[in-house]
Amino acid sequence: MRYKLYYWRGIQGRGEFVRLALEDAGADYDDVAREQGDHAMMPFLQGKQPGALPFAPPFLRAGKEVIAQAANILAYLGPRHGLAPASEAAQRYAMQLQQTVTDIVAEAHDTHHPISGDLYYEQQRGEARQRANAFCAARIPKFLGYFEQVLDRGDGHHAIGRRHSYVDLSLFQLMSGLDYAFPNAMKAIRRRTTKLRALQDRVAERPNIAAYLASERRIPFNEDGIFRHYPELDER
Amino acid sequence: MRYKLYYWRGIQGRGEFVRLALEDAGADYDDVAREQGDHAMMPFLQGKQPGALPFAPPFLRAGKEVIAQAANILAYLGPRHGLAPASEAAQRYAMQLQQTVTDIVAEAHDTHHPISGDLYYEQQRGEARQRANAFCAARIPKFLGYFEQVLDRGDGHHAIGRRHSYVDLSLFQLMSGLDYAFPNAMKAIRRRTTKLRALQDRVAERPNIAAYLASERRIPFNEDGIFRHYPELDER
Repeated sequence: MRYKLYYWRGIQGRGEFVRLALEDAGADYDDVAREQGDHAMMPFLQGKQPGALPFAPPFLRAGKEVIAQAANILAYLGPRHGLAPASEAAQRYAMQLQQTVTDIVAEAHDTHHPISGDLYYEQQRGEARQRANAFCAARIPKFLGYFEQVLDRGDGHHAIGRRHSYVDLSLFQLMSGLDYAFPNAMKAIRRRTTKLRALQDRVAERPNIAAYLASERRIPFNEDGIFRHYPELDER
Repeated sequence: MRYKLYYWRGIQGRGEFVRLALEDAGADYDDVAREQGDHAMMPFLQGKQPGALPFAPPFLRAGKEVIAQAANILAYLGPRHGLAPASEAAQRYAMQLQQTVTDIVAEAHDTHHPISGDLYYEQQRGEARQRANAFCAARIPKFLGYFEQVLDRGDGHHAIGRRHSYVDLSLFQLMSGLDYAFPNAMKAIRRRTTKLRALQDRVAERPNIAAYLASERRIPFNEDGIFRHYPELDER
């Protein structure tokens, strides 16, 4: 089956968690908005297409089915492409971890938009600085400390059991995004994130991921996305 | 099976979405922290118990399994208690909608804590006012407009198809929480939320839910929870 992925063309954003799974799996897919423009998503968002109604991108078309919410898409793709554990209980654990990634991603977004997504960053810069300080001081260490503990409980290398999964891909993306946005904060906790660092390196070396990262399909991080680098938000 | 639900004893919070499903289903459960104190959750959060490691409450113990993240717990309970649709595709749609409820709940929380959850509300009151204004003006209408459209695409009365599900229970809770926190904002969009209002009334009249809401098990909304009523955040 050839999938159709719908996500904003100019950013990695939440779509990137899905792209990484599709790329790692070597799945056939069209990145629709990159090929046709963002307007191609509108009939779905406006309810003019049958199936599930997405609140926002990303959403995936798989045959006739429309699936939205990144964690939900990954829970669909995982078992179909060898990116999820076998048992239902372990699949639930994967979903739990992925939803926790969703949570920190939303918090990362709000560091540059603490007041409103409808205002420009420049209109909420003072508040952004406060929120980013709190995020770097308390939230990054709390979330990454948690994921280190998750790796510890497995085999030390994988989020779930002894097998590579979509959660590992998402942890790679989370670390990469935080590195881009908050290099100083991430450097400061480097010694407390050794297992996540090893995981990040391992994922980057997977052949399909390495090829993807080197390709033009990988949109560079930028200041329209979720992980944005504003030096004033990463002062120590 | 007798479930054990773990959630902070003094608030509805994210645990309430799970409580409503357990109550509606007439399931046997212990609300552990309410019986033993919040400290009863700590061995799980500190990684001293086997199974999935929760990042935060709520989590549910079902036999030997530990399941965390409210949406994930509901996806587990739904099919076991007649609170989820039959097909896998429809279950995925339910999960997508529940994750969208999760998203607005996080935004509702941040109206009173836009800078940091580690500071008191009183330390971020000015920023809270700005964020709450944006939330009431743009985000509540956007999310509730979306859920109205979801109801429209079904039979007009249920989120998924023609059957009651855990999503309906969660939409009831979302509306109730927003009513408590932002009565003026909710009144202003009353005419645009008629299907959600009808759903809210229908859910409140379900016998097990009516009994629960009238019982002492239903913790009143309060200013320690996610939905807080600060009049200054709901001015028109």
